[in-house]
Amino acid sequence: MRNEVDSIGSLSLPSDVYYGIHTQRALDNFPITTQVTHPELIRAFLQIKQAAAQTNATSGSLPRPLAKHIVAAVKVLLSRPIDLKQFPISAIQGGAGTSTNMNVNEVIANTALEMVGRERGDYQYIHPNDHVNMGQSTNDTYPSAGKIALIRLLAPLFTELDALINSLSYKAESFKSIYKMGRTQLQDAVPTTLGNSFHAFLKPLQRDYQRLQAAEKALHSINLGGSAIGSGINVSYHYQVHVVDNLASITHLSLEQTSDLFDGTQNADAFVMLSSQLKTLAVNLSKMANDLRLLSSGPRSGFLEINLPAKQAGSSIMPGKVNPVIPEVVNQVAFEVFGFDATVTAAAEAGQLELNAFEPIMFKSLFASIEHLTHAMTTLRLNAIDGISANRQRLAQDIDLSTSFATAMSPIIGYNAASKLTKSALKTGKTLRQIATQQDLFTDQQLEHIFRVEELVINARTPEHGLVFQAPKDEN
Amino acid sequence: MRNEVDSIGSLSLPSDVYYGIHTQRALDNFPITTQVTHPELIRAFLQIKQAAAQTNATSGSLPRPLAKHIVAAVKVLLSRPIDLKQFPISAIQGGAGTSTNMNVNEVIANTALEMVGRERGDYQYIHPNDHVNMGQSTNDTYPSAGKIALIRLLAPLFTELDALINSLSYKAESFKSIYKMGRTQLQDAVPTTLGNSFHAFLKPLQRDYQRLQAAEKALHSINLGGSAIGSGINVSYHYQVHVVDNLASITHLSLEQTSDLFDGTQNADAFVMLSSQLKTLAVNLSKMANDLRLLSSGPRSGFLEINLPAKQAGSSIMPGKVNPVIPEVVNQVAFEVFGFDATVTAAAEAGQLELNAFEPIMFKSLFASIEHLTHAMTTLRLNAIDGISANRQRLAQDIDLSTSFATAMSPIIGYNAASKLTKSALKTGKTLRQIATQQDLFTDQQLEHIFRVEELVINARTPEHGLVFQAPKDEN
Amino acid sequence: MRNEVDSIGSLSLPSDVYYGIHTQRALDNFPITTQVTHPELIRAFLQIKQAAAQTNATSGSLPRPLAKHIVAAVKVLLSRPIDLKQFPISAIQGGAGTSTNMNVNEVIANTALEMVGRERGDYQYIHPNDHVNMGQSTNDTYPSAGKIALIRLLAPLFTELDALINSLSYKAESFKSIYKMGRTQLQDAVPTTLGNSFHAFLKPLQRDYQRLQAAEKALHSINLGGSAIGSGINVSYHYQVHVVDNLASITHLSLEQTSDLFDGTQNADAFVMLSSQLKTLAVNLSKMANDLRLLSSGPRSGFLEINLPAKQAGSSIMPGKVNPVIPEVVNQVAFEVFGFDATVTAAAEAGQLELNAFEPIMFKSLFASIEHLTHAMTTLRLNAIDGISANRQRLAQDIDLSTSFATAMSPIIGYNAASKLTKSALKTGKTLRQIATQQDLFTDQQLEHIFRVEELVINARTPEHGLVFQAPKDEN
Amino acid sequence: MRNEVDSIGSLSLPSDVYYGIHTQRALDNFPITTQVTHPELIRAFLQIKQAAAQTNATSGSLPRPLAKHIVAAVKVLLSRPIDLKQFPISAIQGGAGTSTNMNVNEVIANTALEMVGRERGDYQYIHPNDHVNMGQSTNDTYPSAGKIALIRLLAPLFTELDALINSLSYKAESFKSIYKMGRTQLQDAVPTTLGNSFHAFLKPLQRDYQRLQAAEKALHSINLGGSAIGSGINVSYHYQVHVVDNLASITHLSLEQTSDLFDGTQNADAFVMLSSQLKTLAVNLSKMANDLRLLSSGPRSGFLEINLPAKQAGSSIMPGKVNPVIPEVVNQVAFEVFGFDATVTAAAEAGQLELNAFEPIMFKSLFASIEHLTHAMTTLRLNAIDGISANRQRLAQDIDLSTSFATAMSPIIGYNAASKLTKSALKTGKTLRQIATQQDLFTDQQLEHIFRVEELVINARTPEHGLVFQAPKDEN
Repeated sequence: MRNEVDSIGSLSLPSDVYYGIHTQRALDNFPITTQVTHPELIRAFLQIKQAAAQTNATSGSLPRPLAKHIVAAVKVLLSRPIDLKQFPISAIQGGAGTSTNMNVNEVIANTALEMVGRERGDYQYIHPNDHVNMGQSTNDTYPSAGKIALIRLLAPLFTELDALINSLSYKAESFKSIYKMGRTQLQDAVPTTLGNSFHAFLKPLQRDYQRLQAAEKALHSINLGGSAIGSGINVSYHYQVHVVDNLASITHLSLEQTSDLFDGTQNADAFVMLSSQLKTLAVNLSKMANDLRLLSSGPRSGFLEINLPAKQAGSSIMPGKVNPVIPEVVNQVAFEVFGFDATVTAAAEAGQLELNAFEPIMFKSLFASIEHLTHAMTTLRLNAIDGISANRQRLAQDIDLSTSFATAMSPIIGYNAASKLTKSALKTGKTLRQIATQQDLFTDQQLEHIFRVEELVINARTPEHGLVFQAPKDEN
Repeated sequence: MRNEVDSIGSLSLPSDVYYGIHTQRALDNFPITTQVTHPELIRAFLQIKQAAAQTNATSGSLPRPLAKHIVAAVKVLLSRPIDLKQFPISAIQGGAGTSTNMNVNEVIANTALEMVGRERGDYQYIHPNDHVNMGQSTNDTYPSAGKIALIRLLAPLFTELDALINSLSYKAESFKSIYKMGRTQLQDAVPTTLGNSFHAFLKPLQRDYQRLQAAEKALHSINLGGSAIGSGINVSYHYQVHVVDNLASITHLSLEQTSDLFDGTQNADAFVMLSSQLKTLAVNLSKMANDLRLLSSGPRSGFLEINLPAKQAGSSIMPGKVNPVIPEVVNQVAFEVFGFDATVTAAAEAGQLELNAFEPIMFKSLFASIEHLTHAMTTLRLNAIDGISANRQRLAQDIDLSTSFATAMSPIIGYNAASKLTKSALKTGKTLRQIATQQDLFTDQQLEHIFRVEELVINARTPEHGLVFQAPKDEN
Repeated sequence: MRNEVDSIGSLSLPSDVYYGIHTQRALDNFPITTQVTHPELIRAFLQIKQAAAQTNATSGSLPRPLAKHIVAAVKVLLSRPIDLKQFPISAIQGGAGTSTNMNVNEVIANTALEMVGRERGDYQYIHPNDHVNMGQSTNDTYPSAGKIALIRLLAPLFTELDALINSLSYKAESFKSIYKMGRTQLQDAVPTTLGNSFHAFLKPLQRDYQRLQAAEKALHSINLGGSAIGSGINVSYHYQVHVVDNLASITHLSLEQTSDLFDGTQNADAFVMLSSQLKTLAVNLSKMANDLRLLSSGPRSGFLEINLPAKQAGSSIMPGKVNPVIPEVVNQVAFEVFGFDATVTAAAEAGQLELNAFEPIMFKSLFASIEHLTHAMTTLRLNAIDGISANRQRLAQDIDLSTSFATAMSPIIGYNAASKLTKSALKTGKTLRQIATQQDLFTDQQLEHIFRVEELVINARTPEHGLVFQAPKDEN
Repeated sequence: MRNEVDSIGSLSLPSDVYYGIHTQRALDNFPITTQVTHPELIRAFLQIKQAAAQTNATSGSLPRPLAKHIVAAVKVLLSRPIDLKQFPISAIQGGAGTSTNMNVNEVIANTALEMVGRERGDYQYIHPNDHVNMGQSTNDTYPSAGKIALIRLLAPLFTELDALINSLSYKAESFKSIYKMGRTQLQDAVPTTLGNSFHAFLKPLQRDYQRLQAAEKALHSINLGGSAIGSGINVSYHYQVHVVDNLASITHLSLEQTSDLFDGTQNADAFVMLSSQLKTLAVNLSKMANDLRLLSSGPRSGFLEINLPAKQAGSSIMPGKVNPVIPEVVNQVAFEVFGFDATVTAAAEAGQLELNAFEPIMFKSLFASIEHLTHAMTTLRLNAIDGISANRQRLAQDIDLSTSFATAMSPIIGYNAASKLTKSALKTGKTLRQIATQQDLFTDQQLEHIFRVEELVINARTPEHGLVFQAPKDEN
């Protein structure tokens, strides 16, 4: 046990911890959840501390030996997985992130002290606030670290999103000549191809990729150098001008300083935008998951147009049942992301004056949105999309029985007459072809045209994914 | 009274209406709200019908005289305010917009019939489906009309957003030399200027402008030519290639055809994105409104840093009370927009297979979001921002009394010692200057530096809006 | 034109209006939407004014002749439909409802003045604040009026909810002997009856009825007598003790005074609770609407288990298409209600200190939730539920083909063996009965048991709606 | 390593695990989050398995020795903390909870096998499906286990909510004679007491207690005995009649069987209701936290009416800064709960036909809502409420300076004249008393009345918490 003192009083700390009194108080104050601060946030914080120490050394504000020790400690901490026992504070915390910032300051100071042969807590030599936190405030380090962590967590999301788009594209291509009934409002409409269906799944994901790229770009604006509230108080000119560039070098990220540091400190719209784009992705994934579950419904009394790969026994009581478990987990992640977006919105709106104190819950929500969506896309691709097969027999049969050919009759005999034929077919249980042939309403050539499913989707303008686009008959 | 018949049966219609049986059925089916379809949606629909008729005439699908009559009827209908008695269907409707499409088809057909001296309902000559709706489906006309309406409603929003940014910019400039306490977590932090505060209000709005421009751009992708489900069934090649260009000419908007028409018919992500960006704007406006209410709290027991213009007697019982009624209405519009975003999200997610049947509620929500935000910004600018004055005396006094100078002491005497001085000042009720002078901790030069508020915000890097940025002392 | 003056300045008013300067300022300040304050809110306000005048007269605070004139004016205004030209303020307004309260005060004063032969605006005789508003504040009248309006709007909702439950109950009864496949996760599970399905629709609605009754009851707690912030300032003891009882008499509602008037003035949890219960109802209606759309999918390639009544031609291009337009509008109202709930939540959370200034948007949202849900239930019942018929042939065929009988085989041959039979059936396209008979795995008696669908649902414990509940074989 | 086989194929399992192939597949299928299924859900599941085995033994369906082994295994597993390595499946999972049910079945089977000296995986003797899962389905066990887990997690929430109410009640009592300015819309209104403020905080929490009790009660309705979809297939009559009672005995909870088991299997409204009530509690806590932050704003430029206990150094850069970190964490938990409610709503609405497959995300969200709210209330009470002190000097001074006495002047000189006095006071910077005395408008007695703050709040009808309620002057 060792003792530490702050302006509130003194506290004893376990002897094996590198953190100090501020961290201990945070543990007592925020016993909300066992989920601690995300390691990527800690990692980004450590790199910020390194950038600050190096910049403060160059500017002459921080004695070079101290800077050296701080940087050395950071490098040790970064060289191994983040030890969550040393960074144990709840991800949900008051204080606008001060506790996490001080946790990092304390662990660095004590690590550095130990590395130079001093006792932990001997802050006169290396002080968490005066030296490790020099030129910084939680106001600028916390949002900066959060943005860097978000950028890093987004990288695998982009990879997975791209892989999913490719997987869907491959399926669209393989399914391009398989005709199927298209439906509007769950009612049979007119024919399309299964390839078209899968292509329509991937298009919004391509836009999500672009939208998320734009949202990610906004995260590269860093308010470091603003210290408290963006005022740059206690910050040297050199530091203010160079710290973000130094951080960019250390992190290998293209970062730039926010043009208005007050703005950069208090406004959370970049996080709302990111959350919204993640939500839009979630909407698109959920819509696709809904369709996959619907199209694979069966095995006897459903749509049974496609087969999802069987990934597990579906029921504990019903033998042989196979369920769409992968799309179902995608749906649930989407519903979760809708909730996270509501949380981020509320937290962003609640920011007051020169600071938004609610960034901890925003970061927690965004980290989870990104990671869960990433993992959901992985399992969706590997365990569902890649293994989907078409139930060709059923698809063909549905088209044969369909009354959708009435739409093609309509230009010849009019909407009202075509409606009557449809009703008659449905009433008698016959096919439209039988009815049409009986009633002698069309020439043979017309009948051939009407019932040639290839022609019904002939004009579909999706040449980009290789669908046949035949020469039009009636080019005028 | 006249009678009409459709595939369901026959209905009698009031003699003074131009709509037909489909519209009448919709009135009976959707008695949800007295709020009818937005006139801008009708207007866009009428222009689509004109474009379709002209294109069908050129392609030879529609006899030229019929096209001429249809276009003439459209022009008459567009030449006067949309008559909501002829377009009476609830904005909330089932059927994916079919009722509104048919309402437009019927009113055009009957208007045209009357113009050529025929009876309303004499559809053999001009038919709502066969002629007015030729080459079209609700599947393509409804989202297209919705997008055009959104584009048009967004135009005044951009104008107002721009005006609000300018108004805030003018205030930021006027207030740039007025020092004030900055606050984090509602606690006094370090000094800033009132100009900085107003500049930090406008920056996210500038980003909102950019974000909304991106969202608006996505609306120019039009799925016309896809007819049912995007398949292009019953659409001539000429029509499919030219109808969007013709519509662009008629509407004077840059429109382009969606590359994958199946995608354009079933996916609603463009609406989710727009809704999200409107929500982000709402977050930023609400945060500003909250700050304005807080900064103007008083008149005696509050922050009283700024004065909002008195716009109405604040209370029915408390004489002389003046309340921040304008920011309050802005907050409420923001809360409404948060709700509309939840609605749009749910509706978009619920789309199934080849069509999203829930566009009516998405459009209703988006139209209201845009219009309410536009009007909220107008009143915020004219009735609040433009008339705000600073309470200079209070602002100066707050800085004098503030303990924020301890932050400037910290680099000299250390964080812990500065903390003790602060506690002592707060305990004794003295100013930090009094405490510091008494204790003989600083040289006169240091004291001058510490208590020179100008220096405390010296490094604020906001040159763009003209704040003084003095040469640094410690450039290394 | 006449002129009025208040503490802000003077304004001219149209000569035909009964409202005064406060209303005029509100029109200028809140040009948010054309949707004005709900007539039921005005009506409740008028009755509050009557109760106040009568109570103030009895206590001696208000001269009896003045009270008489005020009451007479109120009665005239209540005797005809609320004239929205006299109550023209936007439903979305700042000022915590003060504008609507003053609007009512002004219209009453001027109506009374005119009735006694004086000029409108001659407030020395009858003053909107001093006389009509005596003993009151917007702080107590606005939430009180809102609650009364909500109670009144809920009455038809309860009627419609009850009617819908009855309609579903009737259907459950009619469908009780129609067997059908039950599905979990959209995959065939085990048999049930169509009656069970409809009974499962109505049960949550019965709970909604109870939950909404509890939420409604909370609205009967009225903070009248609290005047400003609940302090009861300027309120006579007699008034405070009696005004709520008098209001109860006038409105014919059982109302009681909130026990802590400060609480009653500042906390909006009763509205959050009501909104939440409306949202829960919306969830249940939307789930049912989704199921109805799914079960009626077809007409050839879908579930086609039930037929919804055809209510309108479903498509402008596809002849004979009939769509589930009624359930679709129910879904959209539900999505809207989800959004309104988000709005109410945000507005309630934003209340500060002694007042929630955001009740206008809460009321607007709740009024719309209630009315739209009421109307959605009406059309759902009349235009969908009441006309639903079963597609018996399809339902029977689905059961015959189903592999769900494997579940009944499982206790005899084990889960794993039954799984294998199922897979074999699905692979070969045979029925389970064919497979089972071939393999000689069961006695004839066992086979009869396994394939007797009546036994499979034998134990369903829903005696309450009259389903057969046969004596068990294996009672131990 | 050992091998297991199911209908999909075979898999090898680590030798130290008690789970089987189904669990292993779930690990591969749902790599969404490291957060595993909540131990309370596992614990409830184990008790359900015990109840089922005992009931099946009594009914004769399950040989008594097997039942004995199963029960013995359950008791061993319940006798120690739930070993999450044996229950490793992601809390977010597809399959409607089947994986967790099977995980429990497998661990019990293998534990029992080992206890009787057999090999893990020797399922011929004790089978996860045929024996452990006998008479059950995930359809009935999963919601039942979820409800029991929720009931248990709610118990500490009720304890904490009660403690918080008591803590606030104690403060209300201690502060009952401390006068303070009341505010509406952040503007000074009329005086109240600090006791009133704290009493108004606790009242909605009392209602939350009642509302949550009602929501909790709904969780005692258990659909066990419904097996697949509620049909009771493969369930003996004895089991169906007795299993819930047996479970009640084992869990020491009052449980009753859902009257319509189909309803109990497919409808999630009980979870939506619970989530909504938790959200309402979150709204009330967040409003209180907002007020506490506002009232403690300062230390020099704010409201500074109350002092929150200093719980940690507020800033890494600003010495001596103390921030409202505890209310801030409460706000963030509230925002999180708003999001969880959105998630639960979306998941409940998405349920289809005979089952809601999205209960896993509902349970995860509800568990977190309950636990985070519980912990937030603990820290709010211990680290904030209990240590709050009043800043009496400031409170008294605010009242002296206030213009709120104009409200008490209004009945004497009229609203308009009182408004003018207020404006004059604010303009000149004088107190209202100075202005009033100068202008000779009131008798000495009237002045005494007007400025006696005790009288201004005299009528406040909150006798229940011991506030003075003096005899009225004007009782008529």
